[in-house]
Amino acid sequence: MLKHNFSAGPCILPQEVFKKAAAAVLNFNDLSILEISHRSKDFVEVMEKAQNLALEHLDLTDKGYKALFLGGGASMQFLMVAYNLLESKAAYLNTGTWSTKAIKEAKLFGDVIEVASSKDQNFNYIPKGYTVPSDVDYFHFQTNNTIFGTQLKDDPTVSVPMVCDMSSDIFSRKRDFSKYDLIYAGAQKNMGPAGTTLIVVKEDILGKVSRSIPSMLDYQVHISKDSMFNTPPVFPIYVSMLTMEWLKDNGGIEWIEKINNEKAALVYDEIDRNELFEGFVANKEDRSMMNLTFNLVNEDHKDTFNKMWQEAGINGLNGHRSVGGYRASMYNALTLESAQTLVDVMKELERKA
Amino acid sequence: MLKHNFSAGPCILPQEVFKKAAAAVLNFNDLSILEISHRSKDFVEVMEKAQNLALEHLDLTDKGYKALFLGGGASMQFLMVAYNLLESKAAYLNTGTWSTKAIKEAKLFGDVIEVASSKDQNFNYIPKGYTVPSDVDYFHFQTNNTIFGTQLKDDPTVSVPMVCDMSSDIFSRKRDFSKYDLIYAGAQKNMGPAGTTLIVVKEDILGKVSRSIPSMLDYQVHISKDSMFNTPPVFPIYVSMLTMEWLKDNGGIEWIEKINNEKAALVYDEIDRNELFEGFVANKEDRSMMNLTFNLVNEDHKDTFNKMWQEAGINGLNGHRSVGGYRASMYNALTLESAQTLVDVMKELERKA
Repeated sequence: MLKHNFSAGPCILPQEVFKKAAAAVLNFNDLSILEISHRSKDFVEVMEKAQNLALEHLDLTDKGYKALFLGGGASMQFLMVAYNLLESKAAYLNTGTWSTKAIKEAKLFGDVIEVASSKDQNFNYIPKGYTVPSDVDYFHFQTNNTIFGTQLKDDPTVSVPMVCDMSSDIFSRKRDFSKYDLIYAGAQKNMGPAGTTLIVVKEDILGKVSRSIPSMLDYQVHISKDSMFNTPPVFPIYVSMLTMEWLKDNGGIEWIEKINNEKAALVYDEIDRNELFEGFVANKEDRSMMNLTFNLVNEDHKDTFNKMWQEAGINGLNGHRSVGGYRASMYNALTLESAQTLVDVMKELERKA
Repeated sequence: MLKHNFSAGPCILPQEVFKKAAAAVLNFNDLSILEISHRSKDFVEVMEKAQNLALEHLDLTDKGYKALFLGGGASMQFLMVAYNLLESKAAYLNTGTWSTKAIKEAKLFGDVIEVASSKDQNFNYIPKGYTVPSDVDYFHFQTNNTIFGTQLKDDPTVSVPMVCDMSSDIFSRKRDFSKYDLIYAGAQKNMGPAGTTLIVVKEDILGKVSRSIPSMLDYQVHISKDSMFNTPPVFPIYVSMLTMEWLKDNGGIEWIEKINNEKAALVYDEIDRNELFEGFVANKEDRSMMNLTFNLVNEDHKDTFNKMWQEAGINGLNGHRSVGGYRASMYNALTLESAQTLVDVMKELERKA
């Protein structure tokens, strides 16, 4: 490891994945992975493996779901979801920047009911106690809010199809994924490099809107071609497959969830203990296990702290401009050792201050 | 070089690009290129360099054009072009499978006038002598047809905005690119690995349609954010930059065009000379310099020929199912030596037959 990479995304992946990916760029069955045809037997196998691994990790194999790996980023799903599912109205929970963007795109296709929002407090909490109407086409929300460091930990129970953006916490903790009808996630957090998006969709919710859908935006078209309607982003999918294999070989989500909890406990405990720092999120139960947002109580320590963590080999700790302060993104591949390094620097600051 | 890769795309890239790409996966300024933030100084530089190189190669710097690198593949451009530019009707030239697909998507947004088509002869020629009406929103065509092996070599002169899919021959030969108002190209031929698409657009043609455009499909949104509206496909863009650098360092399009002509002459001469083979394309002036389609005159030689080229280390020579026979895709990075290897095998078959 060259640096302790706390970047919010694109972000750290397992070191062995980097090694395998680099090797495949040089030689993947006598060609570079970058020059093989997406129709070749070798890549068709990669694609199938990636799709199967995604369903397996989510415990959704043989339950009526299809896994797709498409190009275009999770932001493309904001409009694809609406294009494919929004006939008259949909319900959205607003927990931050990405929810707001998803709502904006959906409004081009129908009415949007914002069931609740935490905008009143700069999204520093997860709204609760809201009601999702039973006559909407679907309910959409984000499980984890990368920017604000909040996370919706329960799986809501609603009477309509449930659509969820899990970009920044997929494969990081157990959920009852079978409660969801459509899950999507940009690869560049716990799954792979930037450039592909996983969509896991229950087939029976599709084909119900009356509008014409452009082929590239139509989930049914992509399903009918097994994510090969057009040339897929070969390398990002290959590296995603490697990362999902790494997760499986080590014990799956159950294994990584324990480590993620340990890492988060380590850093949150220090945020709470060390009087120089304060957490950004209002309620402890809403704190993200992936993106830990915190501030210096006294800005006078800023330069010293910044110098210290940079000297310790830490990368990507600056908070998003909407929040300020610091954000420790601790995705699956970040080690306990890196989390400990951050805690050590925080303690060291306390000694110096 | 491990194989002579004649694959139609994704396809061969320069060997030194593979080496640099693999090195960057392991270490790119103390991180892996796969884990760096797209907002980092290092990647912002890559993106700017890629955009500048694209404009430079096309001789479009400071001429009112913007270069974008988006995810989603050239197929996404079939609908984005229509979404952004089609107010009432557009003219399309139909030269093959991809034109047909582009036309299909455009029809969702307005009227399409097919100015000419070579479908009557399985697209084995480029239609000429057609008229593009002066009252359409734009004229759309493909310069090169990967599947059928035809290429439109001139740059048409029309009185409306000219939109062109150059996916399979961009950066391979000089053109008067300033005659075009929007050029797009999937990376996975002469530019880079699969996963990003270059769009070069003259800004003054945008903003004229009355419909609402979803953000991710709106060229103006992507221009306003310098291709960073959402997380871009970092690695495919990085490798595209490396490939465009390789082209520039070696002498640019002028340099590669000479080599491409040499390679194509070598193989087409053999197709014409060797009585065991015949070209697929009806007129010699329509023959693609990128994808050379040909057949065995006598199918009895099929097994022998297939065995021979495979033993010679040639990969990806089988024709597309719509055409059959063989297709030698000879993109920029394919060496003269590989072209000679194919010719040697064709001559050897003649001696054996």
